[in-house]
Amino acid sequence: MISERLEKIKLLMKEHKLDVYYITTSDDHMSEYIPEYYKVLRYFSGFTGSLGTLLITLDKSYLFVDGRYHIQADEETRGSGIEVMHLGLPKVLEPLEFLKTNYEGKTIGLDGKLTSTTFVNMLTKQGNNVVSIDLASGIMEDRTPLSKDMLFSLDESYCGKSTKNKLKEVKYCLSGKTHILTNLESIAYLLNLRGNDIANTPVFLSFMVFTKDDVYLFINKERLSEEILMRLYDDGIAVREYDEYYDFIKEIKNQIVLIDENKVNYETRRLLDKSNKVFNMTSVVEEMKAIKNPVEQENSRLAHIYDGVAMLRFMMWLKKADKTLLDECDVVEKLNAFRLGYRSFDLSFKPIVAYNANAAMMHYSPKKDKCAKLNNEGILLVDSGGQYFEGTTDITRTFALGPVSDEVRKYFTIVLKSMFELSEVVFKKGMSGYQLDILARKELWSLGIDYLCGTGHGVGHVLAVHEMPPNIRYQKTVSASEQQPLVPGNITSDEPGVYFENKYGIRCENMLLVKKAFENEYGEFFKFETLTMCPFDLDLIDMNYLDEKNRIILNTYHAQVRETLSPYLNEEEKDFLNYATREI
Amino acid sequence: MISERLEKIKLLMKEHKLDVYYITTSDDHMSEYIPEYYKVLRYFSGFTGSLGTLLITLDKSYLFVDGRYHIQADEETRGSGIEVMHLGLPKVLEPLEFLKTNYEGKTIGLDGKLTSTTFVNMLTKQGNNVVSIDLASGIMEDRTPLSKDMLFSLDESYCGKSTKNKLKEVKYCLSGKTHILTNLESIAYLLNLRGNDIANTPVFLSFMVFTKDDVYLFINKERLSEEILMRLYDDGIAVREYDEYYDFIKEIKNQIVLIDENKVNYETRRLLDKSNKVFNMTSVVEEMKAIKNPVEQENSRLAHIYDGVAMLRFMMWLKKADKTLLDECDVVEKLNAFRLGYRSFDLSFKPIVAYNANAAMMHYSPKKDKCAKLNNEGILLVDSGGQYFEGTTDITRTFALGPVSDEVRKYFTIVLKSMFELSEVVFKKGMSGYQLDILARKELWSLGIDYLCGTGHGVGHVLAVHEMPPNIRYQKTVSASEQQPLVPGNITSDEPGVYFENKYGIRCENMLLVKKAFENEYGEFFKFETLTMCPFDLDLIDMNYLDEKNRIILNTYHAQVRETLSPYLNEEEKDFLNYATREI
Repeated sequence: MISERLEKIKLLMKEHKLDVYYITTSDDHMSEYIPEYYKVLRYFSGFTGSLGTLLITLDKSYLFVDGRYHIQADEETRGSGIEVMHLGLPKVLEPLEFLKTNYEGKTIGLDGKLTSTTFVNMLTKQGNNVVSIDLASGIMEDRTPLSKDMLFSLDESYCGKSTKNKLKEVKYCLSGKTHILTNLESIAYLLNLRGNDIANTPVFLSFMVFTKDDVYLFINKERLSEEILMRLYDDGIAVREYDEYYDFIKEIKNQIVLIDENKVNYETRRLLDKSNKVFNMTSVVEEMKAIKNPVEQENSRLAHIYDGVAMLRFMMWLKKADKTLLDECDVVEKLNAFRLGYRSFDLSFKPIVAYNANAAMMHYSPKKDKCAKLNNEGILLVDSGGQYFEGTTDITRTFALGPVSDEVRKYFTIVLKSMFELSEVVFKKGMSGYQLDILARKELWSLGIDYLCGTGHGVGHVLAVHEMPPNIRYQKTVSASEQQPLVPGNITSDEPGVYFENKYGIRCENMLLVKKAFENEYGEFFKFETLTMCPFDLDLIDMNYLDEKNRIILNTYHAQVRETLSPYLNEEEKDFLNYATREI
Repeated sequence: MISERLEKIKLLMKEHKLDVYYITTSDDHMSEYIPEYYKVLRYFSGFTGSLGTLLITLDKSYLFVDGRYHIQADEETRGSGIEVMHLGLPKVLEPLEFLKTNYEGKTIGLDGKLTSTTFVNMLTKQGNNVVSIDLASGIMEDRTPLSKDMLFSLDESYCGKSTKNKLKEVKYCLSGKTHILTNLESIAYLLNLRGNDIANTPVFLSFMVFTKDDVYLFINKERLSEEILMRLYDDGIAVREYDEYYDFIKEIKNQIVLIDENKVNYETRRLLDKSNKVFNMTSVVEEMKAIKNPVEQENSRLAHIYDGVAMLRFMMWLKKADKTLLDECDVVEKLNAFRLGYRSFDLSFKPIVAYNANAAMMHYSPKKDKCAKLNNEGILLVDSGGQYFEGTTDITRTFALGPVSDEVRKYFTIVLKSMFELSEVVFKKGMSGYQLDILARKELWSLGIDYLCGTGHGVGHVLAVHEMPPNIRYQKTVSASEQQPLVPGNITSDEPGVYFENKYGIRCENMLLVKKAFENEYGEFFKFETLTMCPFDLDLIDMNYLDEKNRIILNTYHAQVRETLSPYLNEEEKDFLNYATREI
């Protein structure tokens, strides 16, 4: 089926004289997670992961995926003739380098609405000829339509700042310059509105343009209630239809225009009139959004307590259950029920529930009929999170389902320590995730082990579960978000792990809030506050690998979890919590 | 005296309509340490440190110094009316920012031969008007003349690669482009020649220019023996007089010219004809030089053994001496005698021997009649190094001279651990000092303490004791050398410390060689080999602060020192070594 679809593309490629056709996981807004409608890469490759790039050439196709998806992509593309390129492994080239090396000077076709300006610029710079053309839409059948559901407002008691005040700050920073904002999270943040266009990320398709005098919002107007429309009007926003956006862009003339070329699609850039002076820079909204205000911080603490209650109940159920009666999908169902049955209005992403070898695939998620049956032994990795009106959560715990090997307990203990090495650090103002990442990795590196992904990503407030900055990783990215200094109000995950193919995977993940620690003659120092409130499975600790310092850190954390969650629990749950957080 | 000299400058400033006159510690080659002849900053400020910037304005003068020199500069400028600006402390601006903030759009005078192109570019970019003029030479009397001593060759058994081969590599990289090389260490490295123009750094004043077909060396020809001249001729180098350089630069036309604007003075840049295309980039020679070849590595190991023998003898003498009979200068004399009396042909820098409170000044060096008397208590910080034909050394040890406080032993133990935290790390290929620096600082930061300098600097091979890359620091520098990946063959210092003003200072410093550790499915991993071979004073260890891991590291290191140095020592020295490296 996949190969037939690829053949259709190749026919069109020949017709348009393209050497390569480029498809990636994106919508018009360069979103990380995308509406079903936009799942072009999945249609032409079978790969269901959230990030990948497909290069179709006349004789062969290549799918580039990062470490999270190495194994999954191999499995999902089997039989399609597509070669999987395992990014992160030695000598595997990034798509751009691959094109430079193997298709120098050749013509690359791509859909300019679904490709970032930065990427096209880099292609052009390295001598490739780029043709912006949508070959996929004519081939794809039965596309899932876009959402028409109504949006909802996020009350100021949750978000802490009115749209009016946010717009004032943005306009102050722009001081008369034109700004095109296409990032969906930034728009939702600014407008204090949420939608359901993308699974688990409560955003809605829209564009915004700030001109010298006006603010424009492009959106399907039918989805706005009278009340919201009135509020937007009152906030001084001109509301236009979503599909009027590209025509509007063409009419911008003689302006200084600020766009973030990593986030703005190539079609927008292409349509901008030559009379404009265009500057590429990170949107000020992105920075505002990454610094949670005190109301957002206080709400985030609450969201993590609610999430901790759901997770604790899940953990109690899991530890007591007869695992021989369950498969991974049953666990997902139960996990989601605990969360959605308490205070969460949505999941923040599709949970990863992975038994033993499945957990070696970083972003594995179980599929009905294809998922693993559990047993009363081995380990289960559970990475999940919820959307609350108070905030967004993301937590990973790895559980023993019964007896486990000494090796597993050794690595679990090392991973947990690695997580603490980062969460406990005190660091000077100005330090970035790029400079702190080594803390979470050094013990693993000394054993010759690495995890082929970042250590931490930012998390939105009732928004996307991946948000950057902050970004904690030693690897450089195009956006360089990993080199932006961490500032108080940032929320980041801390999630080192080990992944042994065909054996097992272990990850521990807490969410951290950046706070001021103290200031003295040496300068200003920051630290992290751990937001996540859920026990780690003590059955997985090997005391031989837990030094005194980290033993105390673990006990202190567990005491805090006990104290924080107890008021929300019944007696049976409290008993379980007390046992789960016992001093070791 | 200083104020009279400043008045003379101010008269000239008025005459030339300058708002500010800028003086820094430099020669025509942007050397860190400079020939006596060039000590302009010292002449006009009294400050004797190796790095500083003086801004003379019509009503006031400002001396900018980094953390190493805060206290020293205060003392040396007392009574001159100069205000010392303590860089690194909160809210203290760098000279450039200071000029931007307080002298926006004003005219800055400076000697273009003694100022880097980068600095002038930044001044111009921020809107200052720059006038290149030498106001100092007309005022300064009795300048120490430049060296006329003969140069000497470094045999290939020491340096491992012939000039012919080095030039071949450089020309290959330049592929026909013109390259102006003014850095003295790079030239000495390329030519396998050494001189004595700068105290403790065996370089000689010279310029090199690579053109499409030829290689030019500008040097005082009288200083070259017939043999060396013949060799240079044989290597295909055209030798010209040193003072023909600037005229030669003017004649370069219609070329692609590569210069490192951080290292090439503004005068050179200014004289380059407009018909040239000038590119700013780090010289390929700098990178070559920083990667020690196997012969240099093996020789460096030897140099550090020789240095360890001298240091061990010094340590034995010091520990046994009656300290009430000594002052800091006596110790310097003895220390130098041990080194120069064994195998060292020169010191690699003026030793820092600092008792108690003096050690809080990072780069204090004792002066006759002004230095502190010792006592049989407290601590002595000794930072010193030697030049050997086998390599260059740099080592810091802090010694107990008798009873010391618990606080001192606590901080010594923490500093030593901090040093080990860096030296023991295993890290992935591609990591830079910028990403590793946190390891040496995190324990101090958690206590609210920082040292206001980098953690590590590269060291040349029979060259400058400060060489970058590598550079281990969390602070960003203009050259961004801290972000260059560490590569096997790099040699760097590892020297965390604590500095408590008016109380004491503690530093531990070993030299590290970057080596390949292993390569596996996760990539390539590097580690450090410790080159320095000298005990740490066990009298300063507080076992309450030495965790098990670091206790083993210390014992293992001491066992290696014992084994390595013993063959070079007599019985008494061996006994002392055995005791000094006893297992704890």
